Amino acid sequence: MDKIYDLIIIGAGPAGLVASIYASRYRLDHLIFGAQQGGQMSEIADIENWPGDVIVVGRDLISRFVAHAESYGIKVKNESVILIKKADGFFEVETSRGKYQAKSLILAMGAEYRKMNIPGEKEYIGKGVSYCATCDAPFFRDKTVAVIGGGNSAAVVAIEMSDYAQKTYLINKGEKMNAEPIWLEKIHSSPNIEIIKNTGVIEIRGNEKVEKIILDKEYDSRGEIAVGGVFIEVGSEPGVQLAKKLGMETDDGNYIKVNSDMSTSVSGVFAAGDITTGSNKFRQILTAAAEGAIAANSAYKMLKLK
Amino acid sequence: MDKIYDLIIIGAGPAGLVASIYASRYRLDHLIFGAQQGGQMSEIADIENWPGDVIVVGRDLISRFVAHAESYGIKVKNESVILIKKADGFFEVETSRGKYQAKSLILAMGAEYRKMNIPGEKEYIGKGVSYCATCDAPFFRDKTVAVIGGGNSAAVVAIEMSDYAQKTYLINKGEKMNAEPIWLEKIHSSPNIEIIKNTGVIEIRGNEKVEKIILDKEYDSRGEIAVGGVFIEVGSEPGVQLAKKLGMETDDGNYIKVNSDMSTSVSGVFAAGDITTGSNKFRQILTAAAEGAIAANSAYKMLKLK
Repeated sequence: MDKIYDLIIIGAGPAGLVASIYASRYRLDHLIFGAQQGGQMSEIADIENWPGDVIVVGRDLISRFVAHAESYGIKVKNESVILIKKADGFFEVETSRGKYQAKSLILAMGAEYRKMNIPGEKEYIGKGVSYCATCDAPFFRDKTVAVIGGGNSAAVVAIEMSDYAQKTYLINKGEKMNAEPIWLEKIHSSPNIEIIKNTGVIEIRGNEKVEKIILDKEYDSRGEIAVGGVFIEVGSEPGVQLAKKLGMETDDGNYIKVNSDMSTSVSGVFAAGDITTGSNKFRQILTAAAEGAIAANSAYKMLKLK
Repeated sequence: MDKIYDLIIIGAGPAGLVASIYASRYRLDHLIFGAQQGGQMSEIADIENWPGDVIVVGRDLISRFVAHAESYGIKVKNESVILIKKADGFFEVETSRGKYQAKSLILAMGAEYRKMNIPGEKEYIGKGVSYCATCDAPFFRDKTVAVIGGGNSAAVVAIEMSDYAQKTYLINKGEKMNAEPIWLEKIHSSPNIEIIKNTGVIEIRGNEKVEKIILDKEYDSRGEIAVGGVFIEVGSEPGVQLAKKLGMETDDGNYIKVNSDMSTSVSGVFAAGDITTGSNKFRQILTAAAEGAIAANSAYKMLKLK
């Protein structure tokens, strides 16, 4: 029989890392797996709402979280989790490198970029189509790009791109952007960002690389716009496939249903961060971190105080 | 008619300050009142669980929060709120200096130290009785002190005092300390901390200053212990008097009942931090901060998106 840990945390974004910090302080013998350290957070250029840091680069903040978690002697394991299953009185977690057992789990796999599923999207990934402006912006210096989306992340990416691209079209299916006013003000004061509203993008075309996008209605008497890059920012979806196999209850949007103590419908399994219905679905680094702390506290109470 | 603000935030601890950061980003025209900047947080010596800072002094972290909130042109108003009342379509907040109106409120007054209500406690405040080790520890250098309490804060204070006092008694009414294992290990490895369990303190006696405490049963064949200082760490109580006058629903412990969006039983009033039943009642700087963010988001949605 292999060792049975107190806890396995899956995901090394803010929720998972903070769960690990708290678990270490509770002296829970635990592992944390994160194939992508920091998750989506590591791809954010400037974070302006992490309290106490007026502005901080996503990658730097996540490095501080990792250093904090690792200050307790924990090492984030860079292994992809393939399968989670319930065994007799414990859980088994299978990764790319081995199998591990634990009495409790915290699921903190976060969310993934939502795809548009339009022709050309998949074909041109890495050839002009990107889901990560922070990663790819410099490749589009002095080009014309389109940012597709109507929310906060689309707004932020348009602002980010306006520093690189000669011209940025921000294309929103709706009438109004649903973004923080502080970002909208920046967009309106950027001469090289142009908003196209009430308009959808139905296809991405090119040859070797992206050359243009096709609109669902004419804009400025044209049904297409020549662009060298397309940034797709139409939201995210929870990375919930693993949890579904455990028989976990989710809501209509596939987010794991959690109680106020971050427990799920499966006893012994807690969840935290963007993957959950918690924090009134206000998905912030800060709320993910707080959920991680609550989940670790609840796992500790379940394991040690009963 | 005076100006009606979008929002007034009452309390300038982590919950209130983070609510202000988010409110500023939402461009809500708001005020924040805090008679005691930072609240209880400013009295914590070493914070080891603010993510991204392996160790940080409470006063320094709160200064960073204040600087962040004030980076948006907001100034925390050092005024005590005396009365909150509902007027016709808005709320009126009366402070030590004036009256202010707002369409919505976020209550973030935090919690206050719980009193023991034993003879001598009140009389010797500032003469040996303290609720704030971080403030007062240096006055007890080389003395014998008692720390009363069975939770995390009592454990932390005992450790803190062991650096100053010659001898620290940690007196717990229960059998077992309910503190983080990492702190209990430090206590057990400190030669000058002595735990007295299953014992209550029923009186504090002295002349000019504290001289001894009276126990509810004999310890080491003595019914009293000579001490120069008594640190009372028996928990905290929400600062809820103002809210009660608004007719707000609270739980048995007097904490304001909040929904997942931090709304309260009074429409237009949100609450965040140690004063609420939120975050599974796991009262941390991190969870208070997250609640502040959620409350500001909810106030914004109520005011601007409807």
